Amino acid sequence: MKAGVFDSGVGGLTVVKSLLQHKIFKDILYYGDTARVPYGTKDKNTIIRYCLEALEYFENYDIDILIVACNSASAYALDELKKVANIPVVGVIQSGILAVKKTIKNKDANILVIGTNATIKSNLYEIGLKNNGFSNIISIATPLLVPLVEENILDGQILKATFDHYFKDLKDKNIDAIILGCTHFPLLEEKISDYFNQAITIHSGDAIVEYLKSEYNYDTIYDKSNIQFFASSDPKNLKATAKRWIENIRII
Amino acid sequence: MKAGVFDSGVGGLTVVKSLLQHKIFKDILYYGDTARVPYGTKDKNTIIRYCLEALEYFENYDIDILIVACNSASAYALDELKKVANIPVVGVIQSGILAVKKTIKNKDANILVIGTNATIKSNLYEIGLKNNGFSNIISIATPLLVPLVEENILDGQILKATFDHYFKDLKDKNIDAIILGCTHFPLLEEKISDYFNQAITIHSGDAIVEYLKSEYNYDTIYDKSNIQFFASSDPKNLKATAKRWIENIRII
Repeated sequence: MKAGVFDSGVGGLTVVKSLLQHKIFKDILYYGDTARVPYGTKDKNTIIRYCLEALEYFENYDIDILIVACNSASAYALDELKKVANIPVVGVIQSGILAVKKTIKNKDANILVIGTNATIKSNLYEIGLKNNGFSNIISIATPLLVPLVEENILDGQILKATFDHYFKDLKDKNIDAIILGCTHFPLLEEKISDYFNQAITIHSGDAIVEYLKSEYNYDTIYDKSNIQFFASSDPKNLKATAKRWIENIRII
Repeated sequence: MKAGVFDSGVGGLTVVKSLLQHKIFKDILYYGDTARVPYGTKDKNTIIRYCLEALEYFENYDIDILIVACNSASAYALDELKKVANIPVVGVIQSGILAVKKTIKNKDANILVIGTNATIKSNLYEIGLKNNGFSNIISIATPLLVPLVEENILDGQILKATFDHYFKDLKDKNIDAIILGCTHFPLLEEKISDYFNQAITIHSGDAIVEYLKSEYNYDTIYDKSNIQFFASSDPKNLKATAKRWIENIRII
């Protein structure tokens, strides 16, 4: 089986890492729209337009499934992609919601959703969680965490000040779980969990693997997955980031 | 006279403000490529491609001069634009260098250049300043200052931590002047100058006005300038930012 994995830039590499660990695909093709990244600060119509172009790009490669490994794209373009595609299209929001449902049994748990401006504005995590019986949900856009990860600032005073800026008032709210609603955030997973007294984190990459297994009957049947990287600008840079991230981020 | 002002997004609005104050054009058309912003993290070929497309966009409007109000675009695409355009094309780097030459008489002055990754990598400010006899130049890419301005974080702990991250080791270097080599940075002008003990700041907007006056014989001949805004994505948002920035940034 051949999966196309699409992201606005490098963020979706955290999803690729989970897919590689679980070896449910023989081949993975990753396409990062690095010429137009980020999507999370852009408007709905622009995001939809770019996602439809990405789908066309993948038509060259005869993929069996398209994984939208970007929360902002999943928030706005999934329905449009599904209308046009003749293969399954899965996004990280549905899978994140399913992961919460499976992981958090207490419906009164305090759940924090963090993401880009676009993702949070869509309100899709909150709607999905409420449809599954959760009621205590706080959503915050944390756009500055994206450039911090891109600049490899994963520790220190800037990160601390940024966490305080977004999260200070939530420290006494007993947050039980945090949805990392942007594929950059797994690189800050431990720091975010620590800030909230070891709260559970929901990671788009792990969530999508579980989703593919439970909803599409994929399983670990290959010895390893082959991966190829494509980028709309500066592919060398994408490959260098892939090398760094896929080595350094959390191994399950 | 009708000027086209081009930027990757909203940053060039700081240049527009200076142009509006000096009333050297009857009409100003601003085009922000908000669908593909930022340029400063992207590679040379992509930046050139986008700038040539912007030039074509302006061909619809019969402009008399094109002002590239983005340092990253000026760094990489100015020569290519000049080859193709049949009108004058001016950028903010040449004008910034001229502004330093006019403002700083001591050739031993310590000059700090800050900008995006792309602008600093081009090394054009440093080369230009050295060609004009300045020898003590320090260049630093300060990419995180861009999203801070975009998120309207112009004060507080995150800004302080970010300044310390980039500038701490320069505090004892007696910086005399700072080139704000990104059109977002004028919104932090006072804070940056304060950090360096009231160092002189060179602002792309003021610099381009002086450049147009001295090199192209423009002058204040209109009672006011009319301005129109265009964006490749979400024009409403660009207009809202224009309203906020053009009211709030420094009035000469």
